[in-house]
Amino acid sequence: MHSQVVDTPMSEIKETPSLREKFTRFIIDLQNTICKTLESDDGKAVFISDKWERSGGGGGDTRVIEKGSVFEKGGVNTSVVHGEVTDLMRAQLKIEGSKWFACGLSLVIHPLNPYVPTVHANWRYFELYNEHGNLVDRWFGGGADLTPYYLFEEDARRFHQTLKEAIDPFGAELYSKYKKNCDEYFSNAHRNHEMRGIGGVFYDYLRPANEEEADRLFRFQQATGNAFLKAYLPIVAKRKNNRYSEKEIEWQEIRRGRYVEFNLIHDRGTIFGLKTNGRTESILMSLPPRARWIYNYQPPSGSEEEKLLQFCLHPHDWV
Amino acid sequence: MHSQVVDTPMSEIKETPSLREKFTRFIIDLQNTICKTLESDDGKAVFISDKWERSGGGGGDTRVIEKGSVFEKGGVNTSVVHGEVTDLMRAQLKIEGSKWFACGLSLVIHPLNPYVPTVHANWRYFELYNEHGNLVDRWFGGGADLTPYYLFEEDARRFHQTLKEAIDPFGAELYSKYKKNCDEYFSNAHRNHEMRGIGGVFYDYLRPANEEEADRLFRFQQATGNAFLKAYLPIVAKRKNNRYSEKEIEWQEIRRGRYVEFNLIHDRGTIFGLKTNGRTESILMSLPPRARWIYNYQPPSGSEEEKLLQFCLHPHDWV
Repeated sequence: MHSQVVDTPMSEIKETPSLREKFTRFIIDLQNTICKTLESDDGKAVFISDKWERSGGGGGDTRVIEKGSVFEKGGVNTSVVHGEVTDLMRAQLKIEGSKWFACGLSLVIHPLNPYVPTVHANWRYFELYNEHGNLVDRWFGGGADLTPYYLFEEDARRFHQTLKEAIDPFGAELYSKYKKNCDEYFSNAHRNHEMRGIGGVFYDYLRPANEEEADRLFRFQQATGNAFLKAYLPIVAKRKNNRYSEKEIEWQEIRRGRYVEFNLIHDRGTIFGLKTNGRTESILMSLPPRARWIYNYQPPSGSEEEKLLQFCLHPHDWV
Repeated sequence: MHSQVVDTPMSEIKETPSLREKFTRFIIDLQNTICKTLESDDGKAVFISDKWERSGGGGGDTRVIEKGSVFEKGGVNTSVVHGEVTDLMRAQLKIEGSKWFACGLSLVIHPLNPYVPTVHANWRYFELYNEHGNLVDRWFGGGADLTPYYLFEEDARRFHQTLKEAIDPFGAELYSKYKKNCDEYFSNAHRNHEMRGIGGVFYDYLRPANEEEADRLFRFQQATGNAFLKAYLPIVAKRKNNRYSEKEIEWQEIRRGRYVEFNLIHDRGTIFGLKTNGRTESILMSLPPRARWIYNYQPPSGSEEEKLLQFCLHPHDWV
């Protein structure tokens, strides 16, 4: 990332809370804000909070909404966990080190109305220590992506534009780079690399070289985190009262089958979590309320369903 | 496997079709028999046949039934394929060799009525050759397992008993061994090793040391293959007219979610097929028509749903 104005000298940073503490505070505040706002938008269902502890260290707060008037199923989860580096982590994450700390917010929202897109977002921070407990590596990761069932081009533009505006102050080239990452990552390689939706941004292993950069990356995470509701809620408001029938529900469930395929076959976080004894229900809260599989289903030529599929097969520049 | 009476001397084997040819004939005949019988049982839907070619060599015949009066979705597939050994195959299958040949029948049937179990079965044969085209390794694999949504103990006993009777002539200890394999293999490690159903038999890498053993293993495959309809159809007949409501459908779809999880996260054949550019629609025909996910769902204490779950969590000796 490009250099930015630094507004806090090193001497002051040492007296302020650590980055671990600041990032943890940030994701918990953001979780509260997002849950309250979505509840208010839904008007019927509320989030239940399921706090859990991890046997190896730390824990989390899984918040789940189900059977709402707007949101059929969704989770907005935080976790703040730490532990010993295992052989599996060394192999999969290609890291050296003795202990690790990780905190993050991860959300997936599946709305009821097939004209309202599913959305996913995640902001995370990872630290790695040597056997003396000294910090040896750290990085940020995250992103947000949209999974419509019917494509309104203005919605796709708005979503991307809002993310771009949040990111641009941190480097003019970043949005394009993270947008491309996202198109490539959230795709089903086993289905001709069909994307699960129309993308967004995705970034990982953003390693600060010093405290100034660490602070800037933290502010970058705050900026994209705070842009999330602004990018998504107007789309919900605009489409949540659209009329639909069983035909649209069938297509929504077929596309949700693709979402399941991506999450269980390709999503690194899901697979890693499940194989390292993560909390299964918190990890799999990302799965949709219902999914459907029809052998070799092809949407009718010229249909709205086919239009969406074509955008999933061919990444598009939205801004 | 134990030694058995051999009824074909070596001199005669050389004049008969190769094992490749015989096994191919066997699975294609079995595919025809199974499809005809299931169609006749369904009375409404018929199998459509989707023949395909593999760019690397060979092809298959994917037969799919959908929206039947008894069978909601199912596939009975054969494939006869061959190709060059790739690095991925060397790593995953731990084999040395230059070229391979594989043929098999794989089926999954998802019935409409939640009181009728889903069933899966597979019979396969693999050959490996060196760079001169000489056979250097070969093995058989397969099995059958039952996934009920409601447990009728007499059905579970009948399924296991029928498989055991087919296997017993080939070695008295084999059923127990393959039954245990099945319980261990078809389980969701990420859900406390909950089995996807009540098991059956599963075996792999049955390597014949000579032609006599190869012939005996072929007859073993024929015996378990021919036992399939006998093990499954009486259960279908007995339960297909049971009355059910939305409550039973909900539970069926939740359990089908677990089926999806197993197939996409753990099933070696599925994952290997998808990562080696196999035919996606043929591989994923195993997925159910619909699946449902509810956060942290627990069936009510003392319910029929909980009874099934307990049998999935604790392997049981059925015969």
